Amino acid sequence: MVIKLSGSLFDSDILEITKLSELIKKLVREGVRFVLVAGGGAEARKFIKRGRRLGLDESTLDEIGIQVARLNAMLLIGGLGDLAYPSVPTTLEELTLAFETGKVVVLGGLHPGQSTNAVAALAAERVKADLFINATDVDGVYDRDPDLYPSAKLLSEIDLKELKRILGRTSTKAGTYELLDPIALRIIERSKLKCIIVRCKADIIEKAIKGEKVGTVVVI
Amino acid sequence: MVIKLSGSLFDSDILEITKLSELIKKLVREGVRFVLVAGGGAEARKFIKRGRRLGLDESTLDEIGIQVARLNAMLLIGGLGDLAYPSVPTTLEELTLAFETGKVVVLGGLHPGQSTNAVAALAAERVKADLFINATDVDGVYDRDPDLYPSAKLLSEIDLKELKRILGRTSTKAGTYELLDPIALRIIERSKLKCIIVRCKADIIEKAIKGEKVGTVVVI
Amino acid sequence: MVIKLSGSLFDSDILEITKLSELIKKLVREGVRFVLVAGGGAEARKFIKRGRRLGLDESTLDEIGIQVARLNAMLLIGGLGDLAYPSVPTTLEELTLAFETGKVVVLGGLHPGQSTNAVAALAAERVKADLFINATDVDGVYDRDPDLYPSAKLLSEIDLKELKRILGRTSTKAGTYELLDPIALRIIERSKLKCIIVRCKADIIEKAIKGEKVGTVVVI
Amino acid sequence: MVIKLSGSLFDSDILEITKLSELIKKLVREGVRFVLVAGGGAEARKFIKRGRRLGLDESTLDEIGIQVARLNAMLLIGGLGDLAYPSVPTTLEELTLAFETGKVVVLGGLHPGQSTNAVAALAAERVKADLFINATDVDGVYDRDPDLYPSAKLLSEIDLKELKRILGRTSTKAGTYELLDPIALRIIERSKLKCIIVRCKADIIEKAIKGEKVGTVVVI
Amino acid sequence: MVIKLSGSLFDSDILEITKLSELIKKLVREGVRFVLVAGGGAEARKFIKRGRRLGLDESTLDEIGIQVARLNAMLLIGGLGDLAYPSVPTTLEELTLAFETGKVVVLGGLHPGQSTNAVAALAAERVKADLFINATDVDGVYDRDPDLYPSAKLLSEIDLKELKRILGRTSTKAGTYELLDPIALRIIERSKLKCIIVRCKADIIEKAIKGEKVGTVVVI
Amino acid sequence: MVIKLSGSLFDSDILEITKLSELIKKLVREGVRFVLVAGGGAEARKFIKRGRRLGLDESTLDEIGIQVARLNAMLLIGGLGDLAYPSVPTTLEELTLAFETGKVVVLGGLHPGQSTNAVAALAAERVKADLFINATDVDGVYDRDPDLYPSAKLLSEIDLKELKRILGRTSTKAGTYELLDPIALRIIERSKLKCIIVRCKADIIEKAIKGEKVGTVVVI
Repeated sequence: MVIKLSGSLFDSDILEITKLSELIKKLVREGVRFVLVAGGGAEARKFIKRGRRLGLDESTLDEIGIQVARLNAMLLIGGLGDLAYPSVPTTLEELTLAFETGKVVVLGGLHPGQSTNAVAALAAERVKADLFINATDVDGVYDRDPDLYPSAKLLSEIDLKELKRILGRTSTKAGTYELLDPIALRIIERSKLKCIIVRCKADIIEKAIKGEKVGTVVVI
Repeated sequence: MVIKLSGSLFDSDILEITKLSELIKKLVREGVRFVLVAGGGAEARKFIKRGRRLGLDESTLDEIGIQVARLNAMLLIGGLGDLAYPSVPTTLEELTLAFETGKVVVLGGLHPGQSTNAVAALAAERVKADLFINATDVDGVYDRDPDLYPSAKLLSEIDLKELKRILGRTSTKAGTYELLDPIALRIIERSKLKCIIVRCKADIIEKAIKGEKVGTVVVI
Repeated sequence: MVIKLSGSLFDSDILEITKLSELIKKLVREGVRFVLVAGGGAEARKFIKRGRRLGLDESTLDEIGIQVARLNAMLLIGGLGDLAYPSVPTTLEELTLAFETGKVVVLGGLHPGQSTNAVAALAAERVKADLFINATDVDGVYDRDPDLYPSAKLLSEIDLKELKRILGRTSTKAGTYELLDPIALRIIERSKLKCIIVRCKADIIEKAIKGEKVGTVVVI
Repeated sequence: MVIKLSGSLFDSDILEITKLSELIKKLVREGVRFVLVAGGGAEARKFIKRGRRLGLDESTLDEIGIQVARLNAMLLIGGLGDLAYPSVPTTLEELTLAFETGKVVVLGGLHPGQSTNAVAALAAERVKADLFINATDVDGVYDRDPDLYPSAKLLSEIDLKELKRILGRTSTKAGTYELLDPIALRIIERSKLKCIIVRCKADIIEKAIKGEKVGTVVVI
Repeated sequence: MVIKLSGSLFDSDILEITKLSELIKKLVREGVRFVLVAGGGAEARKFIKRGRRLGLDESTLDEIGIQVARLNAMLLIGGLGDLAYPSVPTTLEELTLAFETGKVVVLGGLHPGQSTNAVAALAAERVKADLFINATDVDGVYDRDPDLYPSAKLLSEIDLKELKRILGRTSTKAGTYELLDPIALRIIERSKLKCIIVRCKADIIEKAIKGEKVGTVVVI
Repeated sequence: MVIKLSGSLFDSDILEITKLSELIKKLVREGVRFVLVAGGGAEARKFIKRGRRLGLDESTLDEIGIQVARLNAMLLIGGLGDLAYPSVPTTLEELTLAFETGKVVVLGGLHPGQSTNAVAALAAERVKADLFINATDVDGVYDRDPDLYPSAKLLSEIDLKELKRILGRTSTKAGTYELLDPIALRIIERSKLKCIIVRCKADIIEKAIKGEKVGTVVVI
């Protein structure tokens, strides 16, 4: 099981991190194995914004975002205690070896040009995960933009091709990656990963894992 | 100046590598600075195909493709002799440091999930290149598929958004990356890179560098 | 010349970073060579505080502080542009090689258990610096605590042994390092480094470099 | 148990790799522990030949051969699936740590100047192997050159000193290493390794492991 | 349990190393887990002295001392055989991962500016050790200098603050580090480590582990 | 120009290191470029002997010898001061990059199974050296063993094949490598390196470089 955790989880009070850690601990005791991928969140955006104004190029700003995501990953390792692999892998190869130890592995970003969504998809592919949960700041995918149309309806599932079309028009600067970036989409497609998009809350993630109906399932 | 070299350059006789090396040497003496990115070509596809049949996952197959592209990069370093940075960088940070030495730097792939096109775009962004030449197995972008429609017309320029739309439907397995992958497109967009798509022949590449009309220019 | 820059420089508006960058650029053109060491500042303290509450051990918290200091170093590299070595060394050996290139090298932290003051002192020793400026949040060393005694007098110089005695009673948790930590003091002593403690403002640092009387000189 | 696998295993159809993988899996289930060393084969020779014509020096060509051998090792890891350590060690230290995990470890080359035979001998020494099987393209050692003398007799054993004398006159360019290179011979000698030279076929390797009479045993 | 072993252990006959190894093996079988830290000893001092005369700076001399301590660590790994992690970690992160394997981990030095005492304290903090034994060339801490005052009394315990005061006046060149360097003292303080200072003899170390009264306990 | 320096140079007083450093400095000012390779000497043999008695395997003992040779290399870097590349490369790739800087590069060993002679030959091949001086503890190659036959005659040149034959019978344990190990011989052969065997004294090395008749020239 691979879960991409929205960077916003790390922006607020540590309570949210603690809650999620408790959920993961419980599920590990039930035999579930995890790779968690921390996003960069508001901290990453702050550093990136300042770096851009100081003249850093976009791929270096990507690296700054990756570093902040790794700091968030360290916080989560703290929350998980002895269950967590004590170090944040920086390559897929390190991830593979870390996963072999049987511990919960926590990743931040890996490489410029790839959002943490893509990292999570690559990780899911590498560890042959049964499920890739993309825990975001929204409840799932809507038929229309819910900010503009209050009557927009949450979709319980969406076809990958349709999702590709919807996501095809988003902005591309470092720190502004979207729901699922194009690489994430292609990896889901090429390895036929089972993917659910949900809101990043411990109770909702638990439901998704238990197979209850939450968020939006991506159908290939 | 960053040039992505089609893997097919390395599939044939070494004559093509030698010709290209001579061109680069001449231009370096005229003061042009280069980052070259070698593709994987038929060798990469052969290894990937066998690995897939043996059960390796897609991201590991990406890594195999990256390794073969690096072997091709080594061959090109041989052709360039003392003008080349003697080692193939494996991260953008190493590229940055290598480029500082003033030598021609030759890259293969960098990271799973990214084609060598994306690598070339990231490199162009990092070294703040004036021009990113994507040297491929076709003459440029056509208005229709030239294999199916003999009357298809080569476009002298194409809008990035239009290109995105055209390339939005290609296959996604390791070793089958296309003209410009989605990451390459976004990097071109976010850093407003000047990009020309041409056929990978020394004389045509020279024309593109000299500013003559060849291939298809991507307009942002 | 080695300058330790207070982390507070990076907490405020980027204006301060820009000012300092302009000063460094001017001095480099006059032939001065620099190693700059960025502190972690409020961002580091925030991450460390949250990590401690989540149960991370003190040496891991040190590593978190080091990572944040390196992010600050990246921002400064942005401000310095082409004059800066484009990457943040993570060992003294990397520093040595980076310094050989003739560029301005910017460091963050290096190793748990050592503050960025100690890093700056080790760097000064390694590059055989003529001067080690410790740019802090205070004007220099006072004869009494200036927060408690408004009549406290700024000392224009202080004996190293006396300084050692004064600093001998400070707290020791990650993120709360003081003016000069014990290692910094011993390195100043063993290699007889010339050290000035000043407030971290571009104009004051310039005065210190020009040899004007500012801050407190450490006398060995 | 350490087995050096002839590069020719990887030149043909993947059927041979699959057969060998099945044999290894069976023996692992019986409790045998393995380090496998993949040779470079025809692919390596092809890359080396082209690199030599392009002007690369011999030790760089050795590195190219090493990289190809590592690609072959990755294919074998695919064939072995979960029983294999998922990454190819690049130093003896990494081998040691990989071997500690209890998995089958697959190596390619390690260092210029050493053939994959020498790598296998060093690996056998490091993991204190009971047996070092050198699986080659011949049935074993003959009393005369079997290509020239059809009546040449396969020796069931040969003294190390005699073998040294026979092998003392072979060519030395990258990619043309012989049956056992001088380093392999010295390592066999200094650590008194039990070594058998056999043809690289799954059924013959199995016989050698079971203690049946095949190939040529090296007597120290 | 973390034990810092005086470098003098490695200066004499290997008998002392063997004795200590036997003790550790016995205790491991009883379920105790160890990180051992080897000092540099006379060999380190010899290399450092020669390097200083040849003009190397103090922090490079620190690195030479670290390398020698790692060689001593390798000898101890030899003595411990299969119980030891087969490689000497060079960062705290590597230590953490090595410790996870359940083996006895042996360290030398880690970073310039830190004695092997500080390394041992950081290691104790990182693995959350119950006890940090500092095995030295003296029986413990005395009320006066026992070399000058034959009537000096061995203290069974000493307050950390008092110890800090006593150790505050020692020399600072590479290779001359003292009983506990200032970083070690601060780490003991910040993480409230239980620390005993004893003579580096197998029988005395065993007593300290068993809780018998030997050496000097540091009271926080 | 590549010079292999006998480990015995580092065993005695630092005077010999200083003398050699002065010679190198003088020749660098005359425009000669150097790679120097330090042997391990008596220190290496001492550590290896103790490690063998403690049960370390031969390839680990090789690594210990490599580490000691690197310490000797550091001493020489001290003697050379600013002319030397400040760090000891640990791979041929690092050597290549270090050599590009124009500094004198000093190596110790590189890889188990290869003596520092082989390292020097590989280095000579890699930097395309005009001359490889093997500075040893003897005056050159004799027609008979000079220890047994006082009338043995120093050969002014020797055919490579003859040398191979003579050296074919030496011992093989770590730390006991001979005049030129088999790999060194093959590298000399495959890359047609010009090699002279002389005694390791500054004045004799100078003569060899100036083209005067000293030691024994290896004829291919």
